Amino acid sequence: MTHPTTDAAKKASDRVIIFDTTLRDGEQCPGASMTFEEKLEVAELLDTMGVDVIEAGFPIASVGDFESVSEIARRTKRAVIAGLARAIPGDIARAGEAVRHAQRGRIHTFVSTSPIHLAHQMRKSEEEVLEIITTTVAQARNLVEDVEWSAMDATRTPIEYLCRCVEAAIKAGATTINLPDTVGYATPDEYRTMFRTIRERVPNADKAIFSVHCHDDLGLAVANSLAGVEGGARQVECTINGLGERAGNAALEEIVMAIRTRRDILPYETGIDATMLTRASKLVSAVTSFPVQYNKAIVGRNAFAHESGIHQDGMLKNASTYEIMTPESVGVNKTSLVMGKHSGRHAFREKLKALGYDLGENALEDAFRRFKDLADRKKNVYDEDIEALVDEEILTAHDRVKLVSLSIIAGTRGPQRATMKLDVGGEIRTEEAEGNGPVDATFNAIKALVPHEAVLDLYQVHAVTEGTDAQAEVSVRLSAQGSSVTGRGADPDTLVASARAYLAALNKLLMRGERLHAHAAE
Amino acid sequence: MTHPTTDAAKKASDRVIIFDTTLRDGEQCPGASMTFEEKLEVAELLDTMGVDVIEAGFPIASVGDFESVSEIARRTKRAVIAGLARAIPGDIARAGEAVRHAQRGRIHTFVSTSPIHLAHQMRKSEEEVLEIITTTVAQARNLVEDVEWSAMDATRTPIEYLCRCVEAAIKAGATTINLPDTVGYATPDEYRTMFRTIRERVPNADKAIFSVHCHDDLGLAVANSLAGVEGGARQVECTINGLGERAGNAALEEIVMAIRTRRDILPYETGIDATMLTRASKLVSAVTSFPVQYNKAIVGRNAFAHESGIHQDGMLKNASTYEIMTPESVGVNKTSLVMGKHSGRHAFREKLKALGYDLGENALEDAFRRFKDLADRKKNVYDEDIEALVDEEILTAHDRVKLVSLSIIAGTRGPQRATMKLDVGGEIRTEEAEGNGPVDATFNAIKALVPHEAVLDLYQVHAVTEGTDAQAEVSVRLSAQGSSVTGRGADPDTLVASARAYLAALNKLLMRGERLHAHAAE
Repeated sequence: MTHPTTDAAKKASDRVIIFDTTLRDGEQCPGASMTFEEKLEVAELLDTMGVDVIEAGFPIASVGDFESVSEIARRTKRAVIAGLARAIPGDIARAGEAVRHAQRGRIHTFVSTSPIHLAHQMRKSEEEVLEIITTTVAQARNLVEDVEWSAMDATRTPIEYLCRCVEAAIKAGATTINLPDTVGYATPDEYRTMFRTIRERVPNADKAIFSVHCHDDLGLAVANSLAGVEGGARQVECTINGLGERAGNAALEEIVMAIRTRRDILPYETGIDATMLTRASKLVSAVTSFPVQYNKAIVGRNAFAHESGIHQDGMLKNASTYEIMTPESVGVNKTSLVMGKHSGRHAFREKLKALGYDLGENALEDAFRRFKDLADRKKNVYDEDIEALVDEEILTAHDRVKLVSLSIIAGTRGPQRATMKLDVGGEIRTEEAEGNGPVDATFNAIKALVPHEAVLDLYQVHAVTEGTDAQAEVSVRLSAQGSSVTGRGADPDTLVASARAYLAALNKLLMRGERLHAHAAE
Repeated sequence: MTHPTTDAAKKASDRVIIFDTTLRDGEQCPGASMTFEEKLEVAELLDTMGVDVIEAGFPIASVGDFESVSEIARRTKRAVIAGLARAIPGDIARAGEAVRHAQRGRIHTFVSTSPIHLAHQMRKSEEEVLEIITTTVAQARNLVEDVEWSAMDATRTPIEYLCRCVEAAIKAGATTINLPDTVGYATPDEYRTMFRTIRERVPNADKAIFSVHCHDDLGLAVANSLAGVEGGARQVECTINGLGERAGNAALEEIVMAIRTRRDILPYETGIDATMLTRASKLVSAVTSFPVQYNKAIVGRNAFAHESGIHQDGMLKNASTYEIMTPESVGVNKTSLVMGKHSGRHAFREKLKALGYDLGENALEDAFRRFKDLADRKKNVYDEDIEALVDEEILTAHDRVKLVSLSIIAGTRGPQRATMKLDVGGEIRTEEAEGNGPVDATFNAIKALVPHEAVLDLYQVHAVTEGTDAQAEVSVRLSAQGSSVTGRGADPDTLVASARAYLAALNKLLMRGERLHAHAAE
């Protein structure tokens, strides 16, 4: 730190604030949108794992965004909850309203500062933008104590003008100054130097915490973030799995583990419980249906796998020959055989507790029934199978449309046919439909039984566990009226899993429609 | 460059040699193994796109590795072909034999230099290892002009000892010195400094080209590679999609595009045709069945997608507000409607030529027949559909076992049943089988018709194009006797695609068995 004014500041100087924007920058990338319930689930996990600031959304963007930010603000126990706002009075007022009930709320407002953005997007002069910074930051600071200001496209902004902007923002009351690499253009040396220069030249720089926000367009997001910290930044904006626009943001798990593993030359600390990284990665991948690359650092399925004979030999002799961190340190557990068809209700309840679930009696009873049904059909039931089953149970508890039965005739001699029975709000309906393939026939049957306008955006299958009797986990993304939802379904029969996934997505759309309708009626 | 001794060297100093190790370090990661034919296909594409050095395999590792390295050596027109060898005389002789027919062959030999590897894995003293370096590099240099020596775990080796090793290797005839970050532990500053120090201190450093080889365990592989180049290295070892052990190697596409995009501060050049990056990424993903993360830099499906209203608005006003490179520059083409059921043989042949395929008359006829069949069932036939169909055609041309017909009965009221007819070496066989789900039933029918020992390792489905009538592309990985193969199948019916994929993998195993048998009989 260049300005350690007090002992407390000096002590605090090694602490890096982890600002997670999975629910904002992550969620706004094409295809990653989450439902209200999914956002609450992700926010709860982020809070539990020790994220310092959760950017929960962009309240002015939609009623849904506003509602999820305010509900997360209400529920969150530890983390600061931030709402994003453009440099527009209406945005800032709405963000302030959304975080009002947070124990610690933050308004995060931003404006472009680079010549290319000023000329082409804003169509404003430098002086006009300085004036905007002063008035909007002051407005935000009147609403909350904790105000973050971001210089959009900071890395392509001339340093002199950027200094003037930062000074104005701090003077107007900003407590955090974020200098993002919006287009993923910077290199580590440039980014480090930018922070050093700004913190040296801006007279009131010691009154704010500086923040990095990097995109991975050239594969440099993590290196740039760490370089920014070396340059004096003490907040890192990042996302689980590196989710985000285009090539995504810096991955939270990589930042946290780089700092932990290389404490010798990166003498910083975060408040993150690293053993929860794997679970967070799986949850975000599941709710967005974005697959995690096998060779993704920290959380990819191969991240700790050693195949070559030479490496295996070394590992057997001494793990540190090839391993710089242990799988356990990031929460990877060996898949373990847990339950079979003779496991009772008590054992099942204990297992759920161990996996971190706390279900009510009815949900527990339903989950247990489905577990027994699965155990009848599948020889080995693993932790992952139970997680898939319970996650689906939780998410489908309030569904209007439920699958009763499905039968399929398919093969090379088409057309393929599906006969389906659904429970639609208590009423049983049956339909037979043809299609171009059995999945198409299944979806056509649903469309005939519950007419709707949505378009299928994504259809994806993967196995929950390995082996021939693996459960298939299917993700379906439907979009209607500009918004999209993802449904998941798991079953040993791919076609049944497909039907469940489609119905899960459809139920979310129906629920969203009802919520929107309720709003319109207010 | 610290040592630009001649004009030629000075001119050469900006040129970064791209060394691709997708077929060696990439292929040795769990689940990524490729067949002989797939390796030839990948090598051909790498050579065409301008890769300078292709590390084709580890010849001593298996008969298959030896054969693919020698065949790639024979066929490759431009690139240097490297074979890997431990610091063991038998390894080096075998590598020399494998690259003998290359226009330009290289032996790449390595030995561990870090204290932890010396103590736990090698159980040798520093002096013993120096002696090994001298003799093994000299042996390699007697076989070929072009010898690369790697100091395994260089980043955890004390600099004084590393200098002595490098000096000995160059003295013994090494023309390239690679200093890998084997465990993915380094940071950019450390890695840059290591190269600067070594090149300053080692007296004969100007007689070799230095090389970087980075792993992504902490998300720093690309930044470390570029820092190594700044430190004086002029060869970058990397892989398509960042494939490789654990978190993988530095991604070739990210290295190439970082250098191109930031030429202002990274004043280097590569010989890569960047417009082929997308195709290379798709091919490697397809032959390994490793999915590419949506937000993967350069080649992820979202890498050039802009969702948020603010970004879209900026893009419409001026693309450079948010885009630092164009999708076209890396070979992304908009999916275009190309052909329908009325397209004739001539148009189909022209389309194949445009997509880069050069088929013989018989293969063309077969592909055309399957195209017409597809066009009957699918409204819009896209480039991707044709690619999937032709790729499958090429790979299945010599299959022993072929699918004649399949019919399926499935659904919630199991057991699921598959009735299958196969052509096995000219003989038609029929079987009905039950299973736990329709895919399981289909695979059980194949097992009954063609008994075999292989185990199903992976089953994966994705759509070739978007929409309800998308073709499903299924990947199946089978393993038997320690080796594994991947088969792909595409069809609008997921179950038919599954059967095709399983049969493709099974045919590869059968072919491999025959080749091994032919060898044993030699």
